[in-house]
Amino acid sequence: MRLTIIGFGIVGQSFAKLILDRASELYSVYGVNPRIVACVDTKGVAISPGGLDLRRLLDIKKTKGTVGGYDPEGYKIREGSIAEQIDCEVMLELTPTNLQNGEPGISNIVAAMRSGKHVITVNKGPLALAFPSLMELADYNNVMLRFSGTVGGGTPILEFAKKCLKGDKITSFKGILNGTTNYILTKMEEGLAFETALKDAQNRGIAEALPHLDTDGYDAAAKVSIVANWVMGMKKTICDVDRIGIAGVTLKDIEEARKRHNAIKLIGVAEQKKLSVKPTEVSKMDPICVNGTLNAVTFSSEHSGQQTIIGRGAGGVETASSVLRDLIEIKNTIYEI
Amino acid sequence: MRLTIIGFGIVGQSFAKLILDRASELYSVYGVNPRIVACVDTKGVAISPGGLDLRRLLDIKKTKGTVGGYDPEGYKIREGSIAEQIDCEVMLELTPTNLQNGEPGISNIVAAMRSGKHVITVNKGPLALAFPSLMELADYNNVMLRFSGTVGGGTPILEFAKKCLKGDKITSFKGILNGTTNYILTKMEEGLAFETALKDAQNRGIAEALPHLDTDGYDAAAKVSIVANWVMGMKKTICDVDRIGIAGVTLKDIEEARKRHNAIKLIGVAEQKKLSVKPTEVSKMDPICVNGTLNAVTFSSEHSGQQTIIGRGAGGVETASSVLRDLIEIKNTIYEI
Repeated sequence: MRLTIIGFGIVGQSFAKLILDRASELYSVYGVNPRIVACVDTKGVAISPGGLDLRRLLDIKKTKGTVGGYDPEGYKIREGSIAEQIDCEVMLELTPTNLQNGEPGISNIVAAMRSGKHVITVNKGPLALAFPSLMELADYNNVMLRFSGTVGGGTPILEFAKKCLKGDKITSFKGILNGTTNYILTKMEEGLAFETALKDAQNRGIAEALPHLDTDGYDAAAKVSIVANWVMGMKKTICDVDRIGIAGVTLKDIEEARKRHNAIKLIGVAEQKKLSVKPTEVSKMDPICVNGTLNAVTFSSEHSGQQTIIGRGAGGVETASSVLRDLIEIKNTIYEI
Repeated sequence: MRLTIIGFGIVGQSFAKLILDRASELYSVYGVNPRIVACVDTKGVAISPGGLDLRRLLDIKKTKGTVGGYDPEGYKIREGSIAEQIDCEVMLELTPTNLQNGEPGISNIVAAMRSGKHVITVNKGPLALAFPSLMELADYNNVMLRFSGTVGGGTPILEFAKKCLKGDKITSFKGILNGTTNYILTKMEEGLAFETALKDAQNRGIAEALPHLDTDGYDAAAKVSIVANWVMGMKKTICDVDRIGIAGVTLKDIEEARKRHNAIKLIGVAEQKKLSVKPTEVSKMDPICVNGTLNAVTFSSEHSGQQTIIGRGAGGVETASSVLRDLIEIKNTIYEI
């Protein structure tokens, strides 16, 4: 199975290491033999129709900061989208999330699907902004678009809802979908002011230098819209999510909540066609009331009641493992056809 | 798809109601058209090769206490196993759990598989005592044996581990697998003595009149052995589980644990080929530290870290929904072949 990787950051490199380490097992247990035939980062391209030497690719990325030096002669690529030009079965779209206009993710995904490639992405932007039309385009081109890593990182929140609750109807979900804000709120419960808690998160690499995507609830809102589309069949985008961030949460609010044995969490909800992300008081006895960087989602379904799934929401290796799960699923589905 | 139900208690009746209520959806969404052609309880048999009228079956069970009155002429069945004699694709083995020798479950399951029928069971006995050999027999006869309802009731703990963590290797799990003991321990944390908490659970229908299967940890041990076999490929039985019940837990132990911000829970563990069920001190910050009748299991996997799944562990409707999930899976697999 030939793959092209677009975007070779932490997730891409972790994925390359993962298939390097587990090649024989992937083949013997899952019948998957992934060959990365092209790899693109912001500064260069590495191409080898027979499959790139992943050890060398990772080395060059590490030493030169780009995969561009892989082929000493340099590879000339025609004008236009690389996603169309490379011959492969699956494209991994691993560029950073852009919630403004979804680029370059949307263009990459559209070009790949139009040229008959399956796509795996961990990029929330395209899905948060254009889920319904991207899924339609995938159907039209008879390819699969998979995105387990966009919600929950390594925690299979999307698969859980889709696969484990078959035969039942999910009527609503609620949960903590952003680890950074959960870390900040947990620290605030320990007595730190918002600004101090944010600084602490930044020092630990949990929050970005420009943290507003997390703290203003955009990241959680993107995930709520993805889950609502995929699991509940809603045709919504991030713009439909009623969103309030955590910057307005005060230590006094948290103290008041604590007196009622509650905690304040940034909770995303999808219920009766309405989507929201808001700081919400939840009981400490509620299974979704988890601390630190954990994510937690409770699905309510018609017949099997409520189920909660909890795990770390991020991490390069964990997210790479979700890309691998998607790849195995695509392989199994192709094989069935 | 023709089904035979053996054992028509709460789960069996809930299942009949479920497919009665959702017949059109099951057909349109999942392509499943279940017809119950035979139903057996301890006192009688109802048979109709064209499919039993479920409304009448449920009425007769309710008014007469047995399905035996369904056919006024009575149905004569030859000596021997009904599981072999009825012509159908899937047998639902829903008789009560017997952890002594697994009967009548084991005989029913073996007879059904030998005569080429797929089997769905919610009966822990046969699996806890003979998982490896039953799976071998299923393979040999080229039929499927499914048992989602044996662990977690409506909470898809087994499916989660098997389907959502594909491509990864589960290295260990730990969790609360018995709702009754969790309820008792939760009440003890509120200050009730063991005996009083047990009485309370019995009054609410959470504990049985003879509660030792729960309180001595047999039920949890059965589930640990089932998960270890199915998810981690261990070939173990309930006899291999190192087991201590909760009868020896005192209020003083619980108070001591509380001072360390911990709680005492009956935790089942599978790790490095060892299985155990024991009262264990766990941090209140640990996601598996849930209260009341909830179940919670944390799976640790090589690459995607730790994931916890939480839900109610029992209930007729919830367990019936797990039988339906198994049925849809069997249908999908048959269809693929």
